[in-house]
Amino acid sequence: MTLEGKLLIGQQAVSGQQTEIHAINPATDERLEPTYMGGSKADVEKACALAEAAFDTYRETSLEERATFLETIASEIEAIGDALIERAMAESGLPRARLEGERGRTCGQLRLFAGVVRAGEWLDVRVDPALPEREPMPRVDLRQRHIALGPVVVFGPSNFPLAFSVAGGDTASALAAGCPVVVKAHSAHPGTSELVGRALQKSVETCGLPEGVFSLLFGSGREVGAALVADPRIQAVGFTGSRSGGTALLSIAQNRPQPIPVYAEMSSINPVFLLPEALKARGQAIAEGFVGSLTMGAGQFCTNPGLVIGVKGTDLDGFLDVAGKVVEGSAAQTMLTPDTHQAYQEGVERLSSHAKVREVARGEKGADPHQCQPALFAVAAADFMADEALQREEVFGACSLVVECTDPDEMKRIAAQLEGQLTATLQLDDGDLGTAKQLLPILERKAGRILANGWPTGVEVCHAMVHGGPYPATSDSRTTSVGSAAIHRFLRPVCYQALPADLLPEALKESNPLGVSRLVDGKREA
Amino acid sequence: MTLEGKLLIGQQAVSGQQTEIHAINPATDERLEPTYMGGSKADVEKACALAEAAFDTYRETSLEERATFLETIASEIEAIGDALIERAMAESGLPRARLEGERGRTCGQLRLFAGVVRAGEWLDVRVDPALPEREPMPRVDLRQRHIALGPVVVFGPSNFPLAFSVAGGDTASALAAGCPVVVKAHSAHPGTSELVGRALQKSVETCGLPEGVFSLLFGSGREVGAALVADPRIQAVGFTGSRSGGTALLSIAQNRPQPIPVYAEMSSINPVFLLPEALKARGQAIAEGFVGSLTMGAGQFCTNPGLVIGVKGTDLDGFLDVAGKVVEGSAAQTMLTPDTHQAYQEGVERLSSHAKVREVARGEKGADPHQCQPALFAVAAADFMADEALQREEVFGACSLVVECTDPDEMKRIAAQLEGQLTATLQLDDGDLGTAKQLLPILERKAGRILANGWPTGVEVCHAMVHGGPYPATSDSRTTSVGSAAIHRFLRPVCYQALPADLLPEALKESNPLGVSRLVDGKREA
Repeated sequence: MTLEGKLLIGQQAVSGQQTEIHAINPATDERLEPTYMGGSKADVEKACALAEAAFDTYRETSLEERATFLETIASEIEAIGDALIERAMAESGLPRARLEGERGRTCGQLRLFAGVVRAGEWLDVRVDPALPEREPMPRVDLRQRHIALGPVVVFGPSNFPLAFSVAGGDTASALAAGCPVVVKAHSAHPGTSELVGRALQKSVETCGLPEGVFSLLFGSGREVGAALVADPRIQAVGFTGSRSGGTALLSIAQNRPQPIPVYAEMSSINPVFLLPEALKARGQAIAEGFVGSLTMGAGQFCTNPGLVIGVKGTDLDGFLDVAGKVVEGSAAQTMLTPDTHQAYQEGVERLSSHAKVREVARGEKGADPHQCQPALFAVAAADFMADEALQREEVFGACSLVVECTDPDEMKRIAAQLEGQLTATLQLDDGDLGTAKQLLPILERKAGRILANGWPTGVEVCHAMVHGGPYPATSDSRTTSVGSAAIHRFLRPVCYQALPADLLPEALKESNPLGVSRLVDGKREA
Repeated sequence: MTLEGKLLIGQQAVSGQQTEIHAINPATDERLEPTYMGGSKADVEKACALAEAAFDTYRETSLEERATFLETIASEIEAIGDALIERAMAESGLPRARLEGERGRTCGQLRLFAGVVRAGEWLDVRVDPALPEREPMPRVDLRQRHIALGPVVVFGPSNFPLAFSVAGGDTASALAAGCPVVVKAHSAHPGTSELVGRALQKSVETCGLPEGVFSLLFGSGREVGAALVADPRIQAVGFTGSRSGGTALLSIAQNRPQPIPVYAEMSSINPVFLLPEALKARGQAIAEGFVGSLTMGAGQFCTNPGLVIGVKGTDLDGFLDVAGKVVEGSAAQTMLTPDTHQAYQEGVERLSSHAKVREVARGEKGADPHQCQPALFAVAAADFMADEALQREEVFGACSLVVECTDPDEMKRIAAQLEGQLTATLQLDDGDLGTAKQLLPILERKAGRILANGWPTGVEVCHAMVHGGPYPATSDSRTTSVGSAAIHRFLRPVCYQALPADLLPEALKESNPLGVSRLVDGKREA
């Protein structure tokens, strides 16, 4: 397929008229063709109008139709073949294996949501039958289901050109919920976005859905992105990216005449707690595992372990020694964009020049222009606690800070002082269970996911996953952006009181024709 | 029990030092003793510190302990006996039968939530077992449960001194979720609030819970209310009241360093659609039912039918004729407060003096100072559509506006132009099903509850209820403030990855010791 550099608005491919966008191969600084021209307010207007026009039809597609649509998207993405992987490699600097894995994850995610749609748990069907004989007042028949919120805007980040992008988790879960989606493509991978966008566009046509179910816009965040979030037809926003980007969208969404929810996944440093017995028993293995997680994908994950907390002493020294050596032997890796690399360099420099922070190790220098040189630093817990910036700064990339505590109690105080996180990790052995039990209630209030003896990178797409957490990890701790529960972000409950059978939605009919799990008078029918 | 006029902070009763608050009997303008002195920032500080201190213990109480606590509160409220009803009558002007019913509803609601806690559906337990053999990567064990958000502030309205107040739905659902609650009492019914607050305080002690599980503060919204919402320990807000009050709290909550959710139930005019066949067949009965709903409790319900939409013609004229006569014969009723009555008079006056609105009928004039004289108005659909203020104004009290359309299509256009609502009602017969099917998708997007052939007043407390709806009916259309699903507002998911069995919360242990419904690998186990 030849890339055309056009906006995809419904079934049309439209030439933009605004700012030029060029993808850059970060490994070579080469400018990639074609040029993408940003959309205008008129393009935003058209995409939103189509989404609105599609909504009532799309939200009432049958479970089977909607599931088939999601599966069709997955097949169409796979059908692009190697061209997708090659373009994504060129635009992101990520290696082939990583992108093939990410494609698998993206298509698996779409198929997972197809299964979720068919199972119908998301409808949260509740039936409270009429009680005509009840005293002092009879009860009429009351039934509840969830319906889609309305058209949704999705903003993806640079670091997952497939799994969090055009057909990523936000799009898949919004489509599964019955919401049309308008994607604002990330300017770092417009070609990858166009390829996936065309797969989506084609799936809409193949499945006979109204064209407004999907549109893809290119353009600057200020012009296109802000206009999308402000559009009165848009009813929710999915965003993955920086804290400043997320809070800016949040502010627009909250100041609309009708405020709307924003699901922004923003900032996390993912603390790892090295409990004493585990550190003593297997400090070397932990150090190796840690550096593996730290440097994977040049550290460009929102779940990258950016903070390690341990008790000062020979065991922690041993850990630092091994981790430092592994970091020193770590090859440089090309970062996603020149800007990402620049921001990483500045973050590392701030730590490096911090009076209280000492450098433990740096990885190999890169030969190519935008390569990340891994970095490991250490700081005393008291200095860490005294400096809010150290506690809050996420250096996006393979950089981590080890905090040396005087005792396990100080580890708890650090945990209590942290901001909200996507993850918190415990490295523990049986002898650490007492300490872990004290840390756990603190960490439950700080993070969406708590891990034992693993590493936070590598987020499983499943039913129990929570990729979320208290602010500023996300803007809404009640939700997850990965896993099947992500669908709930795009739904709201509606109660139907004493409706004639002919008017009841399929999901609520007495005979349960969809065969979904129901809560009848408060009791679960499987 | 003698009223003391004190703040209840944990197990203490503390004298306030700020603004004086006096309850007024609206039927007599009599000032009721004692004087309540408003709390200070120091009182807010103390209540929040105690709530925070109580949180970790309270949120991990067993399902049985927490359910018993909710049942104890219900029993303690009943144990106050007639003193509660008499004080509430004096403070609200509401009649005995209504307040006895409201007490029954309040205690029933607490017992419903006890059942909800025991059933454990709210935990939303999800288990994705480890798949060690999976290729290319094994899956580790992942489990999810929901935990309480943290301390919650509750603001009640004037119109339900029991069911939406100190131990009302917000408090019951937050306590059920495992959140300590700080209530800011409504200044219209401080004595009722103290009585119920003491029942709660006693229940906390009887059940051996940490004292910070409940506090009750009096004071001005600006001083105490704003300070509570801004306190960093508070993690969510429940509010029922005016649009201006709700949006003010929303703004404070969104501008905290850590924004928090606000569940504000604010403004609704509850449109009723009179479909042609139903109007023709039983216009008189519908008119009588309508005025009954309109004038119940002096119209002081958030679900009061403030807007009626029908097609102009002899059938609608007949409806107006009957409804007008019933309104004219409707007795005046004392309103909740002098301010409420004043605002009602002003709202009626605005409609009465509107050039395009005609007065259909007024009810009987009251003899007492703050009595509501019911009022019914009518307006042509075109004039209604042209005037945004008419579409948006909620006249709190027994006042309604009938909109006369030229045909059923104009009814649809009106529906599409309405703001978000708590309810939308259809009066329909079999011959109206076609029109109803066209209205339904519009109304689903506008309202939290859709009724057929009933009236929106009288909100059933059950599992399928949605007392919520799109903005500005509420600040969060994804939730309900009445019924068992209200508990979800105060919860967030946490995922536990590969945790040793000893660290897993009871709800997630492999043997399912709590016997709760679980989603295992995406499949529902009842």
